[in-house]
Amino acid sequence: MITPLRWEEGRVVLLDQTRLPQEEVWLRLSGWREVAEAIRTMRVRGAPAIGIAAAYGLALAVWNPSPGKDPRAAFEEAAEGLSRTRPTAVNLFWAIRRMEGAFRRLARSDPEELRRGVLAEAVRIHEEDIAANRRIGEHGAALLPERARVLTVCNTGGLATGGYGTALGVVRRAWEQGKLREVYACETRPLLQGARLTAWELLTERIPFRLIVDGAAGWLMARDGVDAVLVGADRIARNGDVVNKIGTYTLACLAHRHGIPFYSAAPTSTIDLAVATGAEIPIEERAEEEVVAPRGVTFAPRGARAWNPAFDVTPAELVTAIITERGVLRPPYHDTIPQALA
Amino acid sequence: MITPLRWEEGRVVLLDQTRLPQEEVWLRLSGWREVAEAIRTMRVRGAPAIGIAAAYGLALAVWNPSPGKDPRAAFEEAAEGLSRTRPTAVNLFWAIRRMEGAFRRLARSDPEELRRGVLAEAVRIHEEDIAANRRIGEHGAALLPERARVLTVCNTGGLATGGYGTALGVVRRAWEQGKLREVYACETRPLLQGARLTAWELLTERIPFRLIVDGAAGWLMARDGVDAVLVGADRIARNGDVVNKIGTYTLACLAHRHGIPFYSAAPTSTIDLAVATGAEIPIEERAEEEVVAPRGVTFAPRGARAWNPAFDVTPAELVTAIITERGVLRPPYHDTIPQALA
Repeated sequence: MITPLRWEEGRVVLLDQTRLPQEEVWLRLSGWREVAEAIRTMRVRGAPAIGIAAAYGLALAVWNPSPGKDPRAAFEEAAEGLSRTRPTAVNLFWAIRRMEGAFRRLARSDPEELRRGVLAEAVRIHEEDIAANRRIGEHGAALLPERARVLTVCNTGGLATGGYGTALGVVRRAWEQGKLREVYACETRPLLQGARLTAWELLTERIPFRLIVDGAAGWLMARDGVDAVLVGADRIARNGDVVNKIGTYTLACLAHRHGIPFYSAAPTSTIDLAVATGAEIPIEERAEEEVVAPRGVTFAPRGARAWNPAFDVTPAELVTAIITERGVLRPPYHDTIPQALA
Repeated sequence: MITPLRWEEGRVVLLDQTRLPQEEVWLRLSGWREVAEAIRTMRVRGAPAIGIAAAYGLALAVWNPSPGKDPRAAFEEAAEGLSRTRPTAVNLFWAIRRMEGAFRRLARSDPEELRRGVLAEAVRIHEEDIAANRRIGEHGAALLPERARVLTVCNTGGLATGGYGTALGVVRRAWEQGKLREVYACETRPLLQGARLTAWELLTERIPFRLIVDGAAGWLMARDGVDAVLVGADRIARNGDVVNKIGTYTLACLAHRHGIPFYSAAPTSTIDLAVATGAEIPIEERAEEEVVAPRGVTFAPRGARAWNPAFDVTPAELVTAIITERGVLRPPYHDTIPQALA
């Protein structure tokens, strides 16, 4: 199993995903600020993995506090700092809230108990995510036809999660069951998570796939090359609107036109009951440089401007089902989502 | 005016578009084989420009014949060789046929007359294309609302044509008329003609624009950021199906969903009455390397496969109008296209 981060002797050991697939570099982070920086610069990315990283980051704040700072102040400062790294994926805030709850429950513990207690909560968040992924894989694989050809975008695999994957977890499970014919992976500009990370995971597992440029998805569907579109989610609103990697909405529109089911696979920690619709979810806009000079290689002429939203909103009406660890949710989501979370 | 190629003292002088925008390198080609190679490797690209390049290539075959070859054999060999460079854009075959007609008419001329005659036909093809582009610009600009925000893909400007542009010619004319607010240019993976070539042209002319990744087009439309989609064409079937750069069909589906007009701008030399529908048009598949290692920079892991169709087919039902030098053609295209070409 690919796991993108782990706790090891008072350090967070984290795979630097910006350097994949060319180099496999593991960072050893000793403070929450380094974790925050790793999230901001997308050395760790993927909504569930960001949440787990933040949880371990908060454990670091307790394990390796700034000199002269009391644990509560150190923890609160870290929670505040980590919550300002990326605005869209809700798992970040969800994990921070869970860690805050654990910290409060441990408030009267002695220092050693506190350390053990916050770390135990972070590890639980990590392990529960892997377990949720496996159930998502099971529920999702059951939706696919035999010899399924699946189209996906971004990376939703082990690298994006605690270690198994959401949409790519479904792909993994379907492959194990002999139901999967082929994956089409959108390369996913600007940061090429499809070409770099999904390709790396699928090669590692010997699952057959082809990369396509993002613009080719429509033509692939028109040629009857896709049985299902499977994507992850960075945040799902109470009404079932799915915020995910830029390009997801385009795939959903295309799937709808071609009568192809469109599934979002995500743990329930990605569902945000506090937002009624996708319109309330902040969409991160990242540096123009990511478009103009992919991975430092300048393609566009000097002076070219870009618009670079990192995510988009797919309205619930285009989402055939949401695959969670608690089962497959179907419309009307304003009923099924609150039921599943109850 | 940007012109990507010209005749100069028995040579074809051609801007190497694979090196733009970083370097402006002009090649001096003395034989048709070099022209064929420039077309195949996309040093010259864009359906109208390919046609013009082939015409000049045939002039070279007469001007600088292989030693010991008679002019007819040299011409026929060049026509055959040039026609095997790229399969999709019909302007290539159209220009070769026109040059063949000129050659036949000149069959009894003396060698000097023949040389002058074939060159004159190539120059006419070039000049007519520029004139056609200007009329396309005029007709197209009239379709746009005031303060129009236009979305385009690939490069359809001076570089893609004799020197003014088809879809980008419409943009130029609208800008001159003060009607244009902004252009959104899809970067157009895999070969990034939008990021490299369209950005270069728009910067040169100081027309305001933003680059977007191809996957962001849907979200841009959902946010009400686009008044019209303007694309070129590599071949248009008798029924109005438009074959154009991969990604065009996706834009057409998105435009349809969002109620945004979708225009294809092309000279009538791009319309192929010999094909009834887009399904009959060969779609070039290019090297996987273009996806896996854009411009020689490897992003994907070693061993990753790709599917790389260079074009797609947009069905006529999604095409609001076809903007030609003979006017704006509207559905039903099976009536209006033959009328326009009569």
